[in-house]
Amino acid sequence: AMPYENLDHPGASGGSSNTGEPSMKMFTIWVLIAQAVGLLAVILTAVWMSVYHGGFSWVPERVFNFHPLFMVIGLVFLYADGILVYRVFRSVKKFRVKVIHASLHILALIFAIVGLKAVFDSHNLSKPPKPNMWSLHSWLGLTCVLLFCLQWVGGLIHFLLPQTPQSYRKMYLPIHQHWGVILFCMTTVTAITGITEKNAFHDDASKLPAWEKLSNTLGFVLGIFCILVVYIVRRAEYQRVEPPAEPDEEMTLQQPTDEEKTG
Amino acid sequence: AMPYENLDHPGASGGSSNTGEPSMKMFTIWVLIAQAVGLLAVILTAVWMSVYHGGFSWVPERVFNFHPLFMVIGLVFLYADGILVYRVFRSVKKFRVKVIHASLHILALIFAIVGLKAVFDSHNLSKPPKPNMWSLHSWLGLTCVLLFCLQWVGGLIHFLLPQTPQSYRKMYLPIHQHWGVILFCMTTVTAITGITEKNAFHDDASKLPAWEKLSNTLGFVLGIFCILVVYIVRRAEYQRVEPPAEPDEEMTLQQPTDEEKTG
Repeated sequence: AMPYENLDHPGASGGSSNTGEPSMKMFTIWVLIAQAVGLLAVILTAVWMSVYHGGFSWVPERVFNFHPLFMVIGLVFLYADGILVYRVFRSVKKFRVKVIHASLHILALIFAIVGLKAVFDSHNLSKPPKPNMWSLHSWLGLTCVLLFCLQWVGGLIHFLLPQTPQSYRKMYLPIHQHWGVILFCMTTVTAITGITEKNAFHDDASKLPAWEKLSNTLGFVLGIFCILVVYIVRRAEYQRVEPPAEPDEEMTLQQPTDEEKTG
Repeated sequence: AMPYENLDHPGASGGSSNTGEPSMKMFTIWVLIAQAVGLLAVILTAVWMSVYHGGFSWVPERVFNFHPLFMVIGLVFLYADGILVYRVFRSVKKFRVKVIHASLHILALIFAIVGLKAVFDSHNLSKPPKPNMWSLHSWLGLTCVLLFCLQWVGGLIHFLLPQTPQSYRKMYLPIHQHWGVILFCMTTVTAITGITEKNAFHDDASKLPAWEKLSNTLGFVLGIFCILVVYIVRRAEYQRVEPPAEPDEEMTLQQPTDEEKTG
């Protein structure tokens, strides 16, 4: 019933003359570095908003502070981890990994929606109210969230609904993969433009303020995180290798067993 | 003396079941679309700075306006075209294409240096002078220019100096290729943060100003240009195919003939 459980696929398929083991050790190291850099980005965002902008509370003056934190947690960190699960859980059944992938991205979307609510509230509850959707950051951000929803629904229809014909799955898979990575880069870029926009407003100071040093550093950390994640995802050796017994499994929906349905 | 002159390599090598011709027609269409989008970005930048910010003149009040235009021409448009020459001039001798590649990127760097001088002058000549290198945009931008110089010198040493051993060339080639594309994405992102930063300063208006609509649109055009260029460069079928007679030519320095030295 669970033919792929506990299978180990340490190596790469084709193209490389490396044996699997050293390559997979480097894979683990890269994933750990990426996790550390991603968590650093989340922590720096929290410190930036709490130490330098008054902390977190859903009141007009401070509700904005949830926006950067929730967007970075959702559309940068969880988005990336949702992508990486196919690489990380190499020996877990494909269907289960699909469910983890979809769940992490729904969680990412929930964080994003709360983060959007925070910035709209901060504009609308301000006296006088500030206009919404003026800046390039806001245009890019809304585009990202809409594309993220499309991407999620596209994935659900093609890879989780059992009715979808094999040919559609096969056609859509590279589109889903490529646009998923492009969209992840776009969300990171949007986060970086958010830092630029937030920092543009400051009083005349005689030296570079600490909050600007911190948040500029955050911009670099976000960029490095994006490069690391794209590297791990795009590197051929690190891609998930399906068991040779069923080479079409990549495209095949694994029907959940009774055990999975109830547990 | 010129074995590859007028050779035609229309198809892709390996991996694809497509025949070469339709794939190469699409290649031409994608390159033309990319050129149109890249030129649109340059034109929008020029319009933004001339119609809405007073046009081009090297006086303290307006010298800044050269900055966006020259950076977009240099580190976005010319940078991309310098990358694409290997794909576009498929039947031209490798050595000549290398020289075109290096020349376009030196030209890109010259535009970038003048563009940097413009923004430093605009800060330093302002009364009172504005601080330099405070914003995330400035940090990212200077990082890009420094990495661009390193990348150019690395290319010169490894691929144009005849003394460099084959093994070094071979080792450095993927590094040069990957970091070249990453750095191109970084320069585009930096341009987008520049728009965000420039637009953050505006008087309270009752509706979204025309200059902000225009420059936000420019941000999207830059993003689309970046995606198109990366797509063309990374698509395996579009990569330059060396004549099968000399499969190592990718790594081999083509010594210029006398004819080339004088002409």
